[in-house]
Formats: sequence, C-alpha cells, structure tokens
Amino acid sequence: MIAQLPDPPYYAVIFSSQRADADKDYNATAERMVELAAQQPGYLGIESARGADGFGITVSYWSSLQAIDAWKNQAEHLVAQRRGKETWYREFALRIARVERSSTRSAQATGGIT
Amino acid sequence: MIAQLPDPPYYAVIFSSQRADADKDYNATAERMVELAAQQPGYLGIESARGADGFGITVSYWSSLQAIDAWKNQAEHLVAQRRGKETWYREFALRIARVERSSTRSAQATGGIT
Repeated sequence: MIAQLPDPPYYAVIFSSQRADADKDYNATAERMVELAAQQPGYLGIESARGADGFGITVSYWSSLQAIDAWKNQAEHLVAQRRGKETWYREFALRIARVERSSTRSAQATGGIT
Repeated sequence: MIAQLPDPPYYAVIFSSQRADADKDYNATAERMVELAAQQPGYLGIESARGADGFGITVSYWSSLQAIDAWKNQAEHLVAQRRGKETWYREFALRIARVERSSTRSAQATGGIT
C-alpha cells in the first residue's frame, strides 16, 4: 500500500477529512474515485488511511499541477466532491505540495533511508 | 484533528507506514514523538490516521526545511526512528514537500474551498 513513485520532483494532494456519521454510498464512491484517479493523465499513485474515529488522510501523487487541476475538474469527480462537502465530511483540508525529497524502506529491500 | 496552519508556503513531512505485528512500546513512543515534535522550533501542526489494516499516514507541518532537518536529528527522535526501522514498521516511505496551496472547510465556517 506504499505507492511506488518516480524520483522527485512531483506533486502531492494531501486530503485530510473527518467523516460525518452519514455513510450512505460513501464507500462505493470512494472506491470509484480511486479507480478513476488512476486513469487520469499524470497520476502517479495514491495512499490512504482512515482510523476508527473517522479521521482519514488520502495522499494522491501527480506529475504536475496541471494534472491536479484537470483531475479536480473531472466531471464525475466534481459530483463526488459536491456530495463530500454536503454529506460525507464534517470538515476537511486540502493541501497541494511539491515533493522535493523521498526515501522508502520495504521489507524486501533495506536501504534507501540514509 | 485538522491542523490549523498559516497560509502557505510551508513544508510537509508525509510519513506512510505499514505496521508490523509486534506492538511493544509502539503507542507510548508514538504519543511521545507527537508531544516532542510540537516542542520543536518551526513545528506548525500534525495530522495522523491509521486503519485497522495497520497502514497509516502521518503528516507533520513545518516552517522550513531547516526545521525538518533539526527534528530528524533530535536525539530522542533518532532513537525512536531506529526502533521504528528495526521493529515497528514492515515498510515505510518518507516524502518531504513544499505546500503551495491549501483550503479547508470546517463544520463551523463554510467557505475557503473555491
């Protein structure tokens, strides 16, 4: 579930959210958005975690700011964003960042972290 | 649990990890590191989520790359990093990014997202 990404620079969209109690259709739409994001130009990868308290962080990775803007304005995604604001999230923050350094360590290959 | 941050630019450390099964001392150390990070110069805030599958994302926010380097090399944090690599995490990725845009929406105040 660690995304395999190219070397920096690339861009990250950090989406932090507190879920509301209402749950209707949320999971299916969230899965569909992950599937749809992966089909967009410039998509590099995604990581997501949500705790039992309903607080979650999803980070998607993109090759450029243009790719992020295009995904933001994708038609089906716009519908999901509206439902998220109206129904699914009590609060959220969206932060767009340029990744400048990265390091990873997997169970298979050590090294990479210095 | 959404961090209240100044306007960009600032920096984000995105730490994604898959927990190993061994759990000993993990929670106490994780809580201590959150407490200790908040005392460091340049610390702005932190957000964290981990699912039942053991995959988690913690994003800490900092005023500068210098502040991030200083925190990376803080003595007690170095000890925790070593135990994380050896014991607590099956794999992890660390990505350092410059936040260029942000927007938030809270339950109290709508707006901010355009």
